[in-house]
Amino acid sequence: MIEAAKTLDGWYSLHLFYAIDFTSLKLVEAEDREQMVTELKEYLTKLEANHEAKEGSYAFYNITGQKADLMLWMLRPEMKQLTALETEFNKLAISDYLIPTYSYVSVIELSNYLAGDSDEDPYQNPHVRSRLYPEIPRTEYVCFYPMDKRREGNDNWYMLDMDHRKGLMRSHGMIGRGYAGKVKQFITGSVGFDDHEWGVTLFADDVLQFKKLVYEMRFDEVSARYGEFGEFFVGNILAQDDLSSLFEV
Amino acid sequence: MIEAAKTLDGWYSLHLFYAIDFTSLKLVEAEDREQMVTELKEYLTKLEANHEAKEGSYAFYNITGQKADLMLWMLRPEMKQLTALETEFNKLAISDYLIPTYSYVSVIELSNYLAGDSDEDPYQNPHVRSRLYPEIPRTEYVCFYPMDKRREGNDNWYMLDMDHRKGLMRSHGMIGRGYAGKVKQFITGSVGFDDHEWGVTLFADDVLQFKKLVYEMRFDEVSARYGEFGEFFVGNILAQDDLSSLFEV
Amino acid sequence: MIEAAKTLDGWYSLHLFYAIDFTSLKLVEAEDREQMVTELKEYLTKLEANHEAKEGSYAFYNITGQKADLMLWMLRPEMKQLTALETEFNKLAISDYLIPTYSYVSVIELSNYLAGDSDEDPYQNPHVRSRLYPEIPRTEYVCFYPMDKRREGNDNWYMLDMDHRKGLMRSHGMIGRGYAGKVKQFITGSVGFDDHEWGVTLFADDVLQFKKLVYEMRFDEVSARYGEFGEFFVGNILAQDDLSSLFEV
Amino acid sequence: MIEAAKTLDGWYSLHLFYAIDFTSLKLVEAEDREQMVTELKEYLTKLEANHEAKEGSYAFYNITGQKADLMLWMLRPEMKQLTALETEFNKLAISDYLIPTYSYVSVIELSNYLAGDSDEDPYQNPHVRSRLYPEIPRTEYVCFYPMDKRREGNDNWYMLDMDHRKGLMRSHGMIGRGYAGKVKQFITGSVGFDDHEWGVTLFADDVLQFKKLVYEMRFDEVSARYGEFGEFFVGNILAQDDLSSLFEV
Amino acid sequence: MIEAAKTLDGWYSLHLFYAIDFTSLKLVEAEDREQMVTELKEYLTKLEANHEAKEGSYAFYNITGQKADLMLWMLRPEMKQLTALETEFNKLAISDYLIPTYSYVSVIELSNYLAGDSDEDPYQNPHVRSRLYPEIPRTEYVCFYPMDKRREGNDNWYMLDMDHRKGLMRSHGMIGRGYAGKVKQFITGSVGFDDHEWGVTLFADDVLQFKKLVYEMRFDEVSARYGEFGEFFVGNILAQDDLSSLFEV
Repeated sequence: MIEAAKTLDGWYSLHLFYAIDFTSLKLVEAEDREQMVTELKEYLTKLEANHEAKEGSYAFYNITGQKADLMLWMLRPEMKQLTALETEFNKLAISDYLIPTYSYVSVIELSNYLAGDSDEDPYQNPHVRSRLYPEIPRTEYVCFYPMDKRREGNDNWYMLDMDHRKGLMRSHGMIGRGYAGKVKQFITGSVGFDDHEWGVTLFADDVLQFKKLVYEMRFDEVSARYGEFGEFFVGNILAQDDLSSLFEV
Repeated sequence: MIEAAKTLDGWYSLHLFYAIDFTSLKLVEAEDREQMVTELKEYLTKLEANHEAKEGSYAFYNITGQKADLMLWMLRPEMKQLTALETEFNKLAISDYLIPTYSYVSVIELSNYLAGDSDEDPYQNPHVRSRLYPEIPRTEYVCFYPMDKRREGNDNWYMLDMDHRKGLMRSHGMIGRGYAGKVKQFITGSVGFDDHEWGVTLFADDVLQFKKLVYEMRFDEVSARYGEFGEFFVGNILAQDDLSSLFEV
Repeated sequence: MIEAAKTLDGWYSLHLFYAIDFTSLKLVEAEDREQMVTELKEYLTKLEANHEAKEGSYAFYNITGQKADLMLWMLRPEMKQLTALETEFNKLAISDYLIPTYSYVSVIELSNYLAGDSDEDPYQNPHVRSRLYPEIPRTEYVCFYPMDKRREGNDNWYMLDMDHRKGLMRSHGMIGRGYAGKVKQFITGSVGFDDHEWGVTLFADDVLQFKKLVYEMRFDEVSARYGEFGEFFVGNILAQDDLSSLFEV
Repeated sequence: MIEAAKTLDGWYSLHLFYAIDFTSLKLVEAEDREQMVTELKEYLTKLEANHEAKEGSYAFYNITGQKADLMLWMLRPEMKQLTALETEFNKLAISDYLIPTYSYVSVIELSNYLAGDSDEDPYQNPHVRSRLYPEIPRTEYVCFYPMDKRREGNDNWYMLDMDHRKGLMRSHGMIGRGYAGKVKQFITGSVGFDDHEWGVTLFADDVLQFKKLVYEMRFDEVSARYGEFGEFFVGNILAQDDLSSLFEV
Repeated sequence: MIEAAKTLDGWYSLHLFYAIDFTSLKLVEAEDREQMVTELKEYLTKLEANHEAKEGSYAFYNITGQKADLMLWMLRPEMKQLTALETEFNKLAISDYLIPTYSYVSVIELSNYLAGDSDEDPYQNPHVRSRLYPEIPRTEYVCFYPMDKRREGNDNWYMLDMDHRKGLMRSHGMIGRGYAGKVKQFITGSVGFDDHEWGVTLFADDVLQFKKLVYEMRFDEVSARYGEFGEFFVGNILAQDDLSSLFEV
């Protein structure tokens, strides 16, 4: 019998992606448009207050290419808070001019592959807590993609024994560590919540580091033999001050 | 010749998923909107009466993320009753502001893998009956996903002999039993009815238990080698009292 | 060299699936709506006359779930008659409120796997003729799905020799025979006509028999190793008298 | 090192598929509609003149089922002429009532698998020229589908040596030859131009011959082990005289 | 442990594809339409100025078939400049009549498989620089497709050791070199940026060379065993002088 991995689980996570419908937005009076932007800023200001109070966190980015224009990522202690925040966002006036294009439901997750053996309750460990209930950074660029571990023929991650998986994950983790200070990585688990098993959200000031990190990992056995990847999204940060000009048509 | 599994089949099942079109809903007068919500509540009240009379059952949840906003799950003794209920729902005034996003047609199913040998007619067994014609619970959270058993190369569930399948299912069932009191699980069969072979509907007050259960099962051979999974939906309960505020724009 | 299967081919076949757009239909005056229904009934009455004259056949069902609301299945001696009937249907006033969701083009097919050896012209055999040019029954429920025979690695149906395929099909046919009197099965061939190789249309008064038949077959090697299945549709019969109430909004 | 196949390439090819939006077309005055049909006929008359001048060719068919209503196939000496013809078609008044559903970009191709060894320049051979720059026939029925040669595990066409491929193609060609006089076949190459590697366009007065040909070929190793098929379209011919009645609503 | 490939990375890259909505465009007054075209030309003139200043580059082509009508390819030193250029394009008046159909985010990439061993900083090598920060040519035709290296069973590129991969890539490169003077090839890396691992953009005056090159490569082991291909787009060049007539309806 294969020993299942254990995880530590933190805040619930919702990634929302939207395209902007500029064609419709042009039909709106400048004044009304400004009011919409103001209402959106108020929404973001509430998220910011929650972030500063460390009762959750969020990020807001401008996605490159036609898959989406906006990514809103939100973390909260309860999943139903995320449903409510999504509904509130969708009721904003500006959302009449936004087209939902993708979303991802998950929870901040630390795997026990890299954990030491200890009797300590990890949920009381301040270092662990800072990773389970993180402050999302404000880097220049963001990258998001969902992924699975493969279960195909001889390449079946879930049929490997725990020690084998642990060894592979350790080597995988070493690559990540090589990007310390360049890329900040958040893993969210979504088994039972969404269509893939994990979401990966990366932050960096130098967007090229995303490519370097993901490409280097692809040669590592964990990705090479066992990684299955979904859609990739990349974007640059949106400050509240950028919003008026972004929506100006 | 491979011995086919036998099943016990109960109420027919229809899962309906809808997104709410808030943009159009904003064009509706508050009074008209309230009337729509009232009509929707009347529809739900009829479902509730049927549920209390134990002539069927239902659940109504608020889905997280952009795949849907609403999930309505209904059980009835005849499939054509479900078609009629779906048509009635689609004719509600509120449905002009709902966009169908997914549905699943199936029937409550108990597999005989775990059955004992007995001469008794299982359809007369009260315990079996309570599972074939169940009262859907009212937990805080719901999870739904469809699935198949794999038929690929050496991983072909339907080419395994009955004893082998029985052994695997027993171990699989043990994991489920470990979640007794935390997660309530309903299996519906959909071979010949919809695109996957089964639907799984889970109920829990702690949404994290869905992830724990599904992830632990993924390391079990039944899932690891033979499980193929469709889309996952997760959501929180919608009481009738939540409807006015949900649809308020 | 692999010996190809021979087939007997009867009437051409077109399955059309439509969703009803109740939201738009509500904008129509009751009187105009009734006129649309009357026109639809006239169309169906022509199909019925053709069916009674045994110059073709048809069926009209109410599909369960969001994949479609209506299925119209038509059989005719020439394929271009089906194209014309489809165009005529799409020009009906009611079709302004129907959204095409799926269709399937094929021809009634009998395979020679189960045929005896005889010098007789099978097209003159009355029993064969009644299957090539069938009267579609009017059971309570219908089921439709397209399928392929697999061609993958070691599971390649088209690389098996004729005797092997014949043996497998015989055992497969035995399962079908076990449902005689419960399920009536029509096979239509679509190689060169549509995206899958065959369509299967099943009729039964007890909808559960579809699940039992398809599930039992799945454990048979023909399906287990060589069957690939497309989308499944299930529905209940629509009499002309049901149409006014179905379209009433 | 695997020897690559050589090809002879003739006219560039564009298949365009459109659905007719009868709902919108009903809003057009009869007179305006007739004018649209007249403009469409003028467009087709220009294609006909080009076809008669042997400076290109075309075909116009009525597709069966919901994938499309119309197929326009055009051949020209330069690809940019096809882009221009497509744009001109899309600017026709009738195109406001047509919905693009599929297209295919390719070039008439003869493979050298079946070629003899000769020093002659094949582009000067009149028989070869008539196949590279063909007159598209005007049969009752058409069939179109794109396809690939498989590259999977042990079934990798592109890893077979030239002699092996040549032998397989010869046997494949023999099947085609058995349909001489019944089915006329055009192969267009699309590697580097569209999503599949080839398009196959078949013409016959008896639509059943498409099924017989494609099904018989499926048991041939070239298709059985190495063929991957895209969508299939089938339809009957549209004469200019049919257009008024087709678009009459 | 597999040695990962190293890459040299140049300008960031964004391919945007749009279909033209001629139906809506017909509703616009000729004068307004001309003004839209003028505004579009001004946008392109800015891209041209940037191209001439060698601070970036771009190309603008007319795509054949229904996947798109326009392809705009832009290169810039920073990815966020591309996001801004995309937003600016989407705000143009003409964009109200364009439908986004596909996009690709990547970065000009040179792989080190073909690099010599040298202590020199390649980013200072003028030849390397001219390839990392290229002037996009103005040939008659363009071809774009994304691709991946396969990771399946025994055909797993990322599990091959560096020397093996280097050998395969060298032979692959030889084919490309045979097209020198006929096809100009640009490779952009998109691991971590978009859904495939690379984009390939080809330029030629003779469109047939795209087919010859891609087809010849398909018999090379790198493509035959390890290449996975996405959608292909092909088109002819759009000069500013063509725009008025392209958009004239």
